[in-house]
Amino acid sequence: MSKGVLFVISGPSGTGKGTVCKELLANDDNNLFLSISSTTREKRAGETEGETYNYTTADKFKSMIENNEMLEYAVYSGNYYGTPKKTVEKMLAEGRNVILEIEPQGALKVKSILPDAVLIFIIPPSMAELKKRLVERNRETDEQIAARLEAAKWEMEQAQKYNCIVVNDELDACVGEIEEIMRGNVQKRAMVDKLLHEKY
Amino acid sequence: MSKGVLFVISGPSGTGKGTVCKELLANDDNNLFLSISSTTREKRAGETEGETYNYTTADKFKSMIENNEMLEYAVYSGNYYGTPKKTVEKMLAEGRNVILEIEPQGALKVKSILPDAVLIFIIPPSMAELKKRLVERNRETDEQIAARLEAAKWEMEQAQKYNCIVVNDELDACVGEIEEIMRGNVQKRAMVDKLLHEKY
Repeated sequence: MSKGVLFVISGPSGTGKGTVCKELLANDDNNLFLSISSTTREKRAGETEGETYNYTTADKFKSMIENNEMLEYAVYSGNYYGTPKKTVEKMLAEGRNVILEIEPQGALKVKSILPDAVLIFIIPPSMAELKKRLVERNRETDEQIAARLEAAKWEMEQAQKYNCIVVNDELDACVGEIEEIMRGNVQKRAMVDKLLHEKY
Repeated sequence: MSKGVLFVISGPSGTGKGTVCKELLANDDNNLFLSISSTTREKRAGETEGETYNYTTADKFKSMIENNEMLEYAVYSGNYYGTPKKTVEKMLAEGRNVILEIEPQGALKVKSILPDAVLIFIIPPSMAELKKRLVERNRETDEQIAARLEAAKWEMEQAQKYNCIVVNDELDACVGEIEEIMRGNVQKRAMVDKLLHEKY
């Protein structure tokens, strides 16, 4: 059995990566499993423990960092967010494809630890559209949105380090393109695996 | 003007990467420029200085290594082979897409120095076919071919670290797939570049 493939979906805040991941996970043909992040931030209304996040304390989170048990982690607005290594490695070993939806900072960290990961960077069709989406989301102040847009610029400068860049203009097209990338990668890795075990 | 994109074509010996690169370079639509490697090995019949390789002495080559002027280099059968950094960086800055055809060892070194590089790994359709091609090439002893095949296994284990894997079964199809990858990357990078310069 081939090892699973780790797909990391990332991109600036407001590009719709959450929605894209939901669509990808909803399609059983993708054979995808979501790695749930851990966080120290408080649970918001409508969120579910073990589905949206695994909620934990700052003490427990810090001890996991110290014990080198986090694949990646980052701090936003004073809260920790991260991915426990053990869960991901177990799923990959079982031949399941894993999807991680994380911020660009974390995505590049994952690639440095697991160079086999396929990093997919989602970009908006335009900065104006990204701004519009952040405003319409109505979750942040103008200052926070301005900071998000500034961060987006830095993040997009890192896009070239990703395996693939996909534009999220029309959701279905974006999801379809990512599914094609996923199928291609799974197929090609299976071929390499077959070559590695071939007698000649 | 956008910076050019660096494409690195690599794969085990005998996968036909040389022929693939020739085809890619022959198509003007690809807007591709070949970076000529430097080597300390002697010129073979039919080879041309500045086209096949830039031939140099071991002393000069070593001094370029010491001065950190090589993007990558490797030693095969006692001879040095490598890519001078300056030429590649100059071409990229001028907006030209550059193609490097190098051994897998060197390809991963290039990626560590220039993480924007797009690494394309060419695999054979089967190990049996790879063996057949190496035998038909009629350049090496049975022992050398056996060593090539062993090396191919190690190299293919690294394939997952590349941006893309392409099978060279039928030459035209392989070249077409790589051209599509190249077009996609050039187009996506131009889009990111546009986003980075957009006022919002």
